[in-house]
Amino acid sequence: MDPATLIGIGAALAAVFGSMILEGSSPMAIFLPAPLMLVFIGTIGAAVAGGVLPDAKALPKLIKLALTAKVAPPDRSVEILVKLAERARREGLLALEDDVANIEDPFLKRALEMAVDGTDSAAVAEILGAEVDTKRDSDRRGAKVMQDMGGFAPTIGIIGTVIGLIHVLGNLAEPAELGAEIASAFVATLWGVLSANLFWFPMGNRLRRISDMECAQMDLAIEGVLAIQDGSNPRLVEQKLHSLLPPVEQSKKEVA
Amino acid sequence: MDPATLIGIGAALAAVFGSMILEGSSPMAIFLPAPLMLVFIGTIGAAVAGGVLPDAKALPKLIKLALTAKVAPPDRSVEILVKLAERARREGLLALEDDVANIEDPFLKRALEMAVDGTDSAAVAEILGAEVDTKRDSDRRGAKVMQDMGGFAPTIGIIGTVIGLIHVLGNLAEPAELGAEIASAFVATLWGVLSANLFWFPMGNRLRRISDMECAQMDLAIEGVLAIQDGSNPRLVEQKLHSLLPPVEQSKKEVA
Amino acid sequence: MDPATLIGIGAALAAVFGSMILEGSSPMAIFLPAPLMLVFIGTIGAAVAGGVLPDAKALPKLIKLALTAKVAPPDRSVEILVKLAERARREGLLALEDDVANIEDPFLKRALEMAVDGTDSAAVAEILGAEVDTKRDSDRRGAKVMQDMGGFAPTIGIIGTVIGLIHVLGNLAEPAELGAEIASAFVATLWGVLSANLFWFPMGNRLRRISDMECAQMDLAIEGVLAIQDGSNPRLVEQKLHSLLPPVEQSKKEVA
Amino acid sequence: MDPATLIGIGAALAAVFGSMILEGSSPMAIFLPAPLMLVFIGTIGAAVAGGVLPDAKALPKLIKLALTAKVAPPDRSVEILVKLAERARREGLLALEDDVANIEDPFLKRALEMAVDGTDSAAVAEILGAEVDTKRDSDRRGAKVMQDMGGFAPTIGIIGTVIGLIHVLGNLAEPAELGAEIASAFVATLWGVLSANLFWFPMGNRLRRISDMECAQMDLAIEGVLAIQDGSNPRLVEQKLHSLLPPVEQSKKEVA
Amino acid sequence: MDPATLIGIGAALAAVFGSMILEGSSPMAIFLPAPLMLVFIGTIGAAVAGGVLPDAKALPKLIKLALTAKVAPPDRSVEILVKLAERARREGLLALEDDVANIEDPFLKRALEMAVDGTDSAAVAEILGAEVDTKRDSDRRGAKVMQDMGGFAPTIGIIGTVIGLIHVLGNLAEPAELGAEIASAFVATLWGVLSANLFWFPMGNRLRRISDMECAQMDLAIEGVLAIQDGSNPRLVEQKLHSLLPPVEQSKKEVA
Repeated sequence: MDPATLIGIGAALAAVFGSMILEGSSPMAIFLPAPLMLVFIGTIGAAVAGGVLPDAKALPKLIKLALTAKVAPPDRSVEILVKLAERARREGLLALEDDVANIEDPFLKRALEMAVDGTDSAAVAEILGAEVDTKRDSDRRGAKVMQDMGGFAPTIGIIGTVIGLIHVLGNLAEPAELGAEIASAFVATLWGVLSANLFWFPMGNRLRRISDMECAQMDLAIEGVLAIQDGSNPRLVEQKLHSLLPPVEQSKKEVA
Repeated sequence: MDPATLIGIGAALAAVFGSMILEGSSPMAIFLPAPLMLVFIGTIGAAVAGGVLPDAKALPKLIKLALTAKVAPPDRSVEILVKLAERARREGLLALEDDVANIEDPFLKRALEMAVDGTDSAAVAEILGAEVDTKRDSDRRGAKVMQDMGGFAPTIGIIGTVIGLIHVLGNLAEPAELGAEIASAFVATLWGVLSANLFWFPMGNRLRRISDMECAQMDLAIEGVLAIQDGSNPRLVEQKLHSLLPPVEQSKKEVA
Repeated sequence: MDPATLIGIGAALAAVFGSMILEGSSPMAIFLPAPLMLVFIGTIGAAVAGGVLPDAKALPKLIKLALTAKVAPPDRSVEILVKLAERARREGLLALEDDVANIEDPFLKRALEMAVDGTDSAAVAEILGAEVDTKRDSDRRGAKVMQDMGGFAPTIGIIGTVIGLIHVLGNLAEPAELGAEIASAFVATLWGVLSANLFWFPMGNRLRRISDMECAQMDLAIEGVLAIQDGSNPRLVEQKLHSLLPPVEQSKKEVA
Repeated sequence: MDPATLIGIGAALAAVFGSMILEGSSPMAIFLPAPLMLVFIGTIGAAVAGGVLPDAKALPKLIKLALTAKVAPPDRSVEILVKLAERARREGLLALEDDVANIEDPFLKRALEMAVDGTDSAAVAEILGAEVDTKRDSDRRGAKVMQDMGGFAPTIGIIGTVIGLIHVLGNLAEPAELGAEIASAFVATLWGVLSANLFWFPMGNRLRRISDMECAQMDLAIEGVLAIQDGSNPRLVEQKLHSLLPPVEQSKKEVA
Repeated sequence: MDPATLIGIGAALAAVFGSMILEGSSPMAIFLPAPLMLVFIGTIGAAVAGGVLPDAKALPKLIKLALTAKVAPPDRSVEILVKLAERARREGLLALEDDVANIEDPFLKRALEMAVDGTDSAAVAEILGAEVDTKRDSDRRGAKVMQDMGGFAPTIGIIGTVIGLIHVLGNLAEPAELGAEIASAFVATLWGVLSANLFWFPMGNRLRRISDMECAQMDLAIEGVLAIQDGSNPRLVEQKLHSLLPPVEQSKKEVA
């Protein structure tokens, strides 16, 4: 599990509550049921309304994915593919059958099975490429739902604050409670802005980032399998796959 | 009918009115004729002004579509197309004539009729592809009208609030009614923000989502019919169409 | 003339002034010379400054076009082109010479003249396609000027309000007129927001919409003329052009 | 020199100061050294920080270009190119050598020199096309710097206002000067919004507009020279270049 | 080292603190621990939460790169490549082996080594092109993290201000400290807006600018090596590479 999201959100929440304590106010002052209910149910309701029922059902899974996703380092795949390319060159494509059984990454496994089964390489490229494209579209839709929630939350918070102010202005006769009532009206804006910037936008960015990494991994697998099918020189396969790694992974490699 | 939009908007409205009741204010306080008229007629007027008359007439249909649309699950189409591919391979394209009559999806039916009629496959791809493109453009225009309304509504609400404040400031002589008058000035902003985030933006997102699903369905039908016309191996047709399904549908399939 | 823009702006203005009357304030209260001058001259000045002199001179024509444009229904063109395709197939391209003289749409007329004159079909496609592209670019620039004005207006309105508040704050000695002076400071924001959302943004959207319809019409004419030049089967020409019509026009056709 | 930017900014500034005078406040009230220094140095500093040193040095040249640029009308180039096409067809490419010497536009001159020198037409297209692309990228970067400044200015103005308000709130003991101090705090916001909407955004739009016109001119020159090199029919060259002119220039031509 | 970012940020900070001193307030008034902690830790936390752990670890390196990056002038590469093209034409590709050893730019060196080693020119183009693409994607992700921080910072500042105001409104009983407390609430907004506009946005722009320059340099190296491999005429190589230089570098060249 990659803990960046939990660490980041944890640090930001600590900063929020720490600054409250530093200023002498109680963190509990912002846990009021009315604004919490309005902001979270309102935001989720607006997001659900913008899709179809299966999208709504996928929402908890998306949140869990954003918080706890794990992505395999891409240099592992390069290593595996170069070894397979060497073997395929020496012993032929069919010799890979045993190695394929031991591969963990399900997409790479399926790609190699298609190649070993003798599927035409244009069909391999088309079918697997289409799969990456539909996965990317589907992932981006998920990330966009989170981004949309980040857009809805602050404005729904403003709805809560306006509702609160309208209530206050209609009861100006009791000036003693005015301050506390205005304060509680602002709590809705606080939760709207806080949930957008500490939860929804970061989770949306994270879903997009994970999807980009997974799709890059899949593109790398396709490139590698096609090169193996073509019987390319393993050194060239390595250079080619190496060029698809982000610079950080490349320099690690060079150091190694 | 997919109820996500009705459920989402219902939940969000319940959160708004529930939080009002929790805070002790009456939900009826925000149903004032002047701001309601200003925000809704102003928003719709601005949207109508940005198009041509037929666009304006299509608006009620768009709203109904966003609220009650129904989309067929794409895996049904894959099943049908694979069966047809098997039959076409065994008995020839003409043998599909009877099956075509029983197909419900009008676009798939028309695509198959063109194939059975012997239309050149390049022409089938061009004509049906152009149809999907014009449908997509037209749907996006509809979704964009809703998005634009989501942009107009809060600012038109601000117009109402500024008008209200100007009125209040011109009558400072009667301080007793000041609070209630400022409160009613804010109601316009409330309706502007509320209608944008609970009605127009979600409906715009929903129209876009439904259109994407329908166009993906149509693209899948085109791919399938072209593969049948080419006499492709039914197993390859299945893999190809399968790769066009979003990941959720794919895993359902794999489980089955 | 398509009256959607006049109807939409009229309805929205009626909502603004109607809500003022409902609240008991006089619509004349917002017709103050200083903010009107600031917002409208300021907005137009900022727009003029962002282009060259001919752009500035074209501005009144753009506004008139947005308010009163008229677009021919695209299904008329399909009908004409299919008839010409039938005749050209029976009697040859030269037989179209008389029909061409009677065509009203100047772009379609010129396209057919080029075809009848024997211009190479690749040159016809290139020259007419480039013409559509330059028209589209030029139209979008016009629409973007209006969109930019919609962006400038509210912020220039804020300039007016800040100027007004600075003036008020410098004269706190006369508290009796304070309310009226703050009110008149807000009138600049009102006109900024109102002109952006009721005039500039809708007009920009409208210019874009009209341009898209005209360019689609021209693309349809090019497709049709090229198909006639190629001697395509008239039924196929009809299907092809039909696939370029937006869904609304298509279903009208099917009903007919 | 095209005066649109000077006229537009002049008119907008006149509207700002005119509305101040109409409201009875002195235009000098907003010329305070602290906010002026903060907004202009802050905005330019943020822009300089976002590039490299040569970008910073190019800034004054960009501002001068935006204010005083001059663009030649594109129909002149069409005329020249058609005449050259006629001559090249009659007397051969080499006969253009004398005419080339008299051409003012340096890009067109260089393009013709390459053609007369016998450079391969694919190389002419590639080299000159790459030059237009790098110019376009470079120009857009310049325009984007101005757009970024338009984004920085209002928020830096807000920094000034917040600083001012913090100062005021720390000195509530002297209520007599409160009004004047709050007023001067708002002057920073005023200059931020004013400089963004009256200077930076219009200049950014203008730089983009001029660049688009110059690049279109260069594309037209390339198209024309390539057509001359191919020995195209001068009438076709005219139609082709004509199709690249914006509609306004076209209709002028047709009237003539 | 290119000092533009340090100069720009320094000038902007000087303007901020200078304007504070000019207005008679102490710059130390805004160095309060609670808002500083909230804004900086909150912003960085939100950014970290949107990526994976390696992204978080790369953040300090990104900030250092933005502040101190150095980019070699592209005209040096052109000179080197033209000389190599001349030599390769006279003495053959293998004669470049010694020159390659002396080249400083590691990317150009590797590109030339591949060419001298006899790698197929299509493979050279594909492998090196993919490397530039992955570098560009990776750099843009880094720049986008800074841009996102620029978006988070002001809203997290607003969280701090709302927290402060809620605290103030809950303690209206002590009016003597009210002013100072509201002032300190605004300090959070100040740091949010200041850090976004003076640190994060300029650094994001700078990272993008540097990446564009480096990628352009790499593209130029690829173009040059491919032209040398093709045995192109050195004068044509020079013209071609020259056309890839931004206009400023070009005119320097022409003057020289």
